[in-house]
Amino acid sequence: MSSPDSKSSAISSTKPSTKSSRLVHNSYGKSGVRLSKIIRHADYQELRELTANIQLEGDFAGSYLDGDNSQIIATDSMKNTVYVLAAEHPFATLESFAHDLALHFLKTYSHVTEATVHLVEDLWLRIPTDGKPHPHAFVSGGNEKRIASVIADRESISMQSGIDNLVVAKTTDSQFWGFIRDQYTTLPEARDRIMATSIEASWLYRAETKSEADKIDFNKNYDTIRTIILDIFATQHSLAVQQTLYEMGEAVLAAISDIEEISITMPNQHRIAFNLEPFGKKNQNEIFVPIDEPYGLISGTIKRGG
Amino acid sequence: MSSPDSKSSAISSTKPSTKSSRLVHNSYGKSGVRLSKIIRHADYQELRELTANIQLEGDFAGSYLDGDNSQIIATDSMKNTVYVLAAEHPFATLESFAHDLALHFLKTYSHVTEATVHLVEDLWLRIPTDGKPHPHAFVSGGNEKRIASVIADRESISMQSGIDNLVVAKTTDSQFWGFIRDQYTTLPEARDRIMATSIEASWLYRAETKSEADKIDFNKNYDTIRTIILDIFATQHSLAVQQTLYEMGEAVLAAISDIEEISITMPNQHRIAFNLEPFGKKNQNEIFVPIDEPYGLISGTIKRGG
Amino acid sequence: MSSPDSKSSAISSTKPSTKSSRLVHNSYGKSGVRLSKIIRHADYQELRELTANIQLEGDFAGSYLDGDNSQIIATDSMKNTVYVLAAEHPFATLESFAHDLALHFLKTYSHVTEATVHLVEDLWLRIPTDGKPHPHAFVSGGNEKRIASVIADRESISMQSGIDNLVVAKTTDSQFWGFIRDQYTTLPEARDRIMATSIEASWLYRAETKSEADKIDFNKNYDTIRTIILDIFATQHSLAVQQTLYEMGEAVLAAISDIEEISITMPNQHRIAFNLEPFGKKNQNEIFVPIDEPYGLISGTIKRGG
Amino acid sequence: MSSPDSKSSAISSTKPSTKSSRLVHNSYGKSGVRLSKIIRHADYQELRELTANIQLEGDFAGSYLDGDNSQIIATDSMKNTVYVLAAEHPFATLESFAHDLALHFLKTYSHVTEATVHLVEDLWLRIPTDGKPHPHAFVSGGNEKRIASVIADRESISMQSGIDNLVVAKTTDSQFWGFIRDQYTTLPEARDRIMATSIEASWLYRAETKSEADKIDFNKNYDTIRTIILDIFATQHSLAVQQTLYEMGEAVLAAISDIEEISITMPNQHRIAFNLEPFGKKNQNEIFVPIDEPYGLISGTIKRGG
Repeated sequence: MSSPDSKSSAISSTKPSTKSSRLVHNSYGKSGVRLSKIIRHADYQELRELTANIQLEGDFAGSYLDGDNSQIIATDSMKNTVYVLAAEHPFATLESFAHDLALHFLKTYSHVTEATVHLVEDLWLRIPTDGKPHPHAFVSGGNEKRIASVIADRESISMQSGIDNLVVAKTTDSQFWGFIRDQYTTLPEARDRIMATSIEASWLYRAETKSEADKIDFNKNYDTIRTIILDIFATQHSLAVQQTLYEMGEAVLAAISDIEEISITMPNQHRIAFNLEPFGKKNQNEIFVPIDEPYGLISGTIKRGG
Repeated sequence: MSSPDSKSSAISSTKPSTKSSRLVHNSYGKSGVRLSKIIRHADYQELRELTANIQLEGDFAGSYLDGDNSQIIATDSMKNTVYVLAAEHPFATLESFAHDLALHFLKTYSHVTEATVHLVEDLWLRIPTDGKPHPHAFVSGGNEKRIASVIADRESISMQSGIDNLVVAKTTDSQFWGFIRDQYTTLPEARDRIMATSIEASWLYRAETKSEADKIDFNKNYDTIRTIILDIFATQHSLAVQQTLYEMGEAVLAAISDIEEISITMPNQHRIAFNLEPFGKKNQNEIFVPIDEPYGLISGTIKRGG
Repeated sequence: MSSPDSKSSAISSTKPSTKSSRLVHNSYGKSGVRLSKIIRHADYQELRELTANIQLEGDFAGSYLDGDNSQIIATDSMKNTVYVLAAEHPFATLESFAHDLALHFLKTYSHVTEATVHLVEDLWLRIPTDGKPHPHAFVSGGNEKRIASVIADRESISMQSGIDNLVVAKTTDSQFWGFIRDQYTTLPEARDRIMATSIEASWLYRAETKSEADKIDFNKNYDTIRTIILDIFATQHSLAVQQTLYEMGEAVLAAISDIEEISITMPNQHRIAFNLEPFGKKNQNEIFVPIDEPYGLISGTIKRGG
Repeated sequence: MSSPDSKSSAISSTKPSTKSSRLVHNSYGKSGVRLSKIIRHADYQELRELTANIQLEGDFAGSYLDGDNSQIIATDSMKNTVYVLAAEHPFATLESFAHDLALHFLKTYSHVTEATVHLVEDLWLRIPTDGKPHPHAFVSGGNEKRIASVIADRESISMQSGIDNLVVAKTTDSQFWGFIRDQYTTLPEARDRIMATSIEASWLYRAETKSEADKIDFNKNYDTIRTIILDIFATQHSLAVQQTLYEMGEAVLAAISDIEEISITMPNQHRIAFNLEPFGKKNQNEIFVPIDEPYGLISGTIKRGG
């Protein structure tokens, strides 16, 4: 599971530390809050399932320095808050729930200076029966996740959305050659290889206020970006994982003006050609050994503006 | 990963054990042999990926009793065999590859008395681009697996096929009530609950020889069974996980005469209603906590014949 | 996690099935019931943590065939039972708790014909402070587990205890040579290799009644067996994993007369020598690549009696 | 597995991007490089096993923008480098190997501007036989890991060492009360609870050059810090996880002058008291349900200086 980088903030402790050390950063919260929400429409139902991770920063130093919990919101109360707010929330977008949760903590507790809410949604697909989606039966969408992540303080918000574990492979149209050959190199050049990866993409919205965020069509953007990523993966002739990654980012920024930058990580899940020569045969680029480790890990951030 | 039960066989050791103990069962093999095979058709490609697990029984007692490895087929050689045979195999069905692998070991090594081959296939779906499946780009089918498992000795074969990790949920049309209430019971009766499970189904074919097995359309059966299972899950009004399980098995046996019996396991992946009353609200059967543990584990075997 | 093989029992359904299929086996229960029990002695405390898995067989066909749950003990009630019985139980041995749980279900519900209780204990070690074990602070014993597994019906009991995930390695004194060399063999013979494995051992007691079981010192046996297994792993000059496995079993049976047979599984967790020759160096049997897959999987059952 | 935050660096691409987007960050490398090294001393052997993760930053934009790999060090070559350097390295400390690996990439490739090497070591303990540690047989140290992480550029180095997955629990001497009670609070105050956590600690050394780093006794520091952390966990009367965390950090800084700051993360692995009242019994603070999710996640960074 990916998590947003916490913006570091130096919290001054309520009393001077008696020793020659000081608490320069603290944060705490509840992770792994799992929620199912059923939305019962007239003619079909939605099953929405997510895991919420909440981190708060603020005036909590008393608990660290003295075990004084008077400013501490119990993480159990944060967990309760997720369920209570979920009961009332329309869940139109994952982002809106993340957003409202983050603002709730800032609004309710004046000593909270920053709230980070990171939601990871499991995807459910309606089971096709009689040629159409069943109204209330679902099959898992697999390991792929939809992500919404909001960091809010009293001045502004930062909204990131993403896809995680989008596992793809192509059996041709991928090359890797022309790299540095020196005394540490044994990898042969590949003119036709399998390329397989588990894509993690996280896009940062330009919106910095609630009113700006409210105008965004998060669902449409998510669908568009997922389609662009799959499309480029499928159709680009790839010379390097790096090139594929960059082209995805460039295309997303070109298509969606709401987005300021996008970070993509693509672990290279290698398939190693099995050597059939000891057995008197030639591997016609057909037989491979998939390995989990080691893996190339390629990442990049593409930002709007020339 | 499920694995077939090994049929136990007492292997008489080549020499009497000098101590008051004897080796009453032994088997060994290679597990986790991961294979990618690309089948390059004229207008599209197939990406087939599986993990092979091989276990052999036979006259191996010398290795156990004396460290005499002269009868030992190295597990590394078994691994090589998977790749060598895969290179030549058409892969028309997963079952045919399992079958041919098992027979290979019996045919090649006269002291092998039984070979078990258990294949677990990862599913890849062709990425839709421009409204049709892309010819050589794939997205993962998730955690769901297709299974083929063959146990063969010199007299007969036993062929099992299966589905594993078929994760499904329904948001209504499931009840659970009328169960025993005694001093250990706190569970309320449910007239409308979420039912979620990860289905594992394994069907045993009636075929006991290679020529009988060669007549079976394994792929069609797999597709039909998967559809039946999803269909019953979606459309049956369930009074118990047990009932749903049995109805699935009965329908499979009714539809497919090749099959002698089917075993189904359905862990009950509970969603617990979150109590909103402490917060002055009522849970309208909408807000739940998904839990992994503990889980009900329900299984049954349904066999042909009245 | 290993689990005991269920003894299969044909349950006659309460009414004839209307279709041409019948339920030939059924069982259900609760798995993943996690328990912490603190035992507060005068001068130190014990932290005992285990996961309980319960499976019952009996007259449950009504639920499968008709959704009639009147004979169903809810798996939630089974879960409650674990905690209620744990509160009163002295926990002198893991086996005694497994035993009492299994007998409870047979005693309480006349239509239960067989109860299987499989307990997996997490091990906690007292933290050394000031040169002695701290009375109430613990560090995890890692992934190694202690197992107790009881299958009971109205006539007899079957008691198995075990160790799981005992991960060990030796850097010399292990060989593997003299195995079959044929066209599928590329593995070189090894006169000095790393041997690494994760040992799973499960021993079956001779006791078949409660009074016989009550005389057994399960804790002492567990300690003795663990020591024997580690000792033989460390000190035997190994010619094959198979040989090491057998010698462990033989030594356990020789040492402990309570035990009828022992099954051991030893996956061969390979370390592959890294080829340094392309870099102008020789690997002095020092640099290896540990791999998880594929792995040799070696098992054997050793029984008392010549 | 924790990984160090990459310092972000804007890499100017070799040619202007033709579209209205630019690559503002890129890095790539090899992760999951698993290594076993045996060090054969006269009277005993060491088994050292680690997973290496390497990330490089530098002038790699050509690969992203144009698929021009002429500046790309293949991740496969990075993997080779780990093994080649490991063969020659004395492995006196984990940190020295991380350090030398990082410097190697900077020294060998002039277009690399920053190298991050993150090593995760699996711990092996010598098996006690005949009352003393066996010279070449080992038992796993469990999930606990030792970490060394180096970020180096051409001006300076940043060295972090750490412990991960140090799983501990105490059965008394932990309280949690006095926290905010509002409409979202249902958690009762606890005057005597189980505290369990999996400690991750990462300490940043003051050394910023190789010569400064060479003077540090990393192994002694690691041992001292591990002992301090366990000692405070065991002996402190805890009023909050936060307080325990801070006290650990303060004690480490007081004991070890080499260290500039320490970050500690302590997920609160909850044990929930099981309610025995429906069964007519009282839970004497003895019977608990361990849960994995949700979990409180507490972190803090403590820095030298008042």
